[in-house]
Amino acid sequence: MFATHCRLPSFTGVALGATLAVLSVASAMTDPLPSWNEGPTKAAIIAFVERVATEGSSDFVPLHERVAVFDNDGTLWVEQPVPAQVAFELACVSAVGNTHPDWEMTQPFKAALEGDTSYLAGIGERGFAEILVESHEGWDTDDYQTTLMSWMAGTRDARFGRPATDLVYQPMLEVIDYFRTNEFEIYIVSGNSADFMRPWVAAVYGMQPDHVIGSAITTRYEFIGGKPRLTRLPAMSMIGDGAGRPAGIYERIGRRPIAAFGNADIDFEMLQWTTTAPGPRLGVVIHHTDAQREYAYDRKTNFGLLDAVLDAAGPNGWLVVDMRNDWKTIFPFETQ
Amino acid sequence: MFATHCRLPSFTGVALGATLAVLSVASAMTDPLPSWNEGPTKAAIIAFVERVATEGSSDFVPLHERVAVFDNDGTLWVEQPVPAQVAFELACVSAVGNTHPDWEMTQPFKAALEGDTSYLAGIGERGFAEILVESHEGWDTDDYQTTLMSWMAGTRDARFGRPATDLVYQPMLEVIDYFRTNEFEIYIVSGNSADFMRPWVAAVYGMQPDHVIGSAITTRYEFIGGKPRLTRLPAMSMIGDGAGRPAGIYERIGRRPIAAFGNADIDFEMLQWTTTAPGPRLGVVIHHTDAQREYAYDRKTNFGLLDAVLDAAGPNGWLVVDMRNDWKTIFPFETQ
Repeated sequence: MFATHCRLPSFTGVALGATLAVLSVASAMTDPLPSWNEGPTKAAIIAFVERVATEGSSDFVPLHERVAVFDNDGTLWVEQPVPAQVAFELACVSAVGNTHPDWEMTQPFKAALEGDTSYLAGIGERGFAEILVESHEGWDTDDYQTTLMSWMAGTRDARFGRPATDLVYQPMLEVIDYFRTNEFEIYIVSGNSADFMRPWVAAVYGMQPDHVIGSAITTRYEFIGGKPRLTRLPAMSMIGDGAGRPAGIYERIGRRPIAAFGNADIDFEMLQWTTTAPGPRLGVVIHHTDAQREYAYDRKTNFGLLDAVLDAAGPNGWLVVDMRNDWKTIFPFETQ
Repeated sequence: MFATHCRLPSFTGVALGATLAVLSVASAMTDPLPSWNEGPTKAAIIAFVERVATEGSSDFVPLHERVAVFDNDGTLWVEQPVPAQVAFELACVSAVGNTHPDWEMTQPFKAALEGDTSYLAGIGERGFAEILVESHEGWDTDDYQTTLMSWMAGTRDARFGRPATDLVYQPMLEVIDYFRTNEFEIYIVSGNSADFMRPWVAAVYGMQPDHVIGSAITTRYEFIGGKPRLTRLPAMSMIGDGAGRPAGIYERIGRRPIAAFGNADIDFEMLQWTTTAPGPRLGVVIHHTDAQREYAYDRKTNFGLLDAVLDAAGPNGWLVVDMRNDWKTIFPFETQ
């Protein structure tokens, strides 16, 4: 079973990294956020960075406390019609489904086999974890990574005809680059499993793989036939619900961020924990308002529900990014 | 209970960071390891770094794969007569013992209250975790950190009359600095809880707090009276036994190191996983052979048992550092 575990069709890969070149250009320009339209949102982000990074400023924040966290799905890349990891797990379930005849009768596996994404949207992170741990059990971590990268490079989004790693938001790449230039430490905090993201974050976001804070499948170390092996077990440590994110960040980096970017109710506690403390704080909510260039959704959607956070943004002083009006460009490939 | 949780006596603190100045000097010198005596051990470490960091070398290793891991207790600092975290937890148990009358009758708490370290040495990591989670339950993470740093700065080692953070090994500070200069990413992998180490690793090792991979007490996020709070729960995710270390490293950074430094059997699997893969690999075992300047112990000791790893070093090609003969200096304060 090991050798053929979730063997997805092989793809001739598209090289990742096309976006990285764009990323580097941004920091060399006078305007650190050229894909943002002028207005109060852009001005507020720049004002925050200048306040905390300018020595002598009353709001100056020393380097080791200059930490910013970013949700991934819907904040840094497209999460509609289904988030990329959901699509990947559906492919995995299909690939190993013939060894699990019981799945045809049992939820949530039945829905996964049938690609019933509206059912899957309702099962929550724990239901999704159940699919993930069962379909990955026994998988070798090296083989997992090879399979993932092949799938990622070869799978095309139906609407845009591009791999998921192309569907990142150019304005957010500029924010990451701008924050990094001002010596922020940048972390991704996502309900996705960390090893789903680590293989490509360096190429796509210019980010160290260990700066991904996500859920994690538990592995077991074995030494078989003179070779070490880490095998995926049917158990998972999770970022969990929204309240799990501050705990996950603290467990991983031991500090409270001073800036947080999210787009959904699952980011509520992360935004709240980040912004309710003394000193300069920045909370940013990406509001998907652009059906023409990307998607428009908030209080009613299968993935990325934005309801309580939208109501809480005003009272908490969180910036709400109106994607349609605030972003001049959505994707890096528009400018190429 | 929250406000007085494990309130240890207040100390007028000794500033950490004295060692950092020493650290910086090393890299400016021609000899990257001046506190190491000339010989095959020092030569092998330097030869390894030069091979992997020299572009054009057949053993060149690209930046993002240049990862080195270090055990802490007994590898980077003194772990005798008891590791610092054990001493800290005994102080915590004493401080809150009057609220737990049952502890006087129940092991391992009875031993902790009585300071019976030879009993405690036998309870293993799980027994120790039991003490830790029960005595920390309900503690606010900010208060924990303040208390820890106050204890750390104010507590003196009985033999050397110095705080634990002074009892780091100068030759290993030079190794860390040398590896970092050659663009290695450096991680500490320890059975200590990560938040016991994070507050001081920047000052002592020049290391980012999030580069500590350790056990972690689970926390819960709450929002009470307009203030967010992370509270320590009676649960813990653990690095666990030796086989847990490769899994812990993979979960945290998603990569296999190419160099590992340890000093005890608990480091066996970490050394094995690091060194049994293609390409240049380095495994190093610190052997405590210097009773006069530090301690001499291996196959019989309460803490830091070195038995199977000592036998496996030869067959696996791991370097064994003979502390007495290989190290010119043991502690930074010797040179000040």
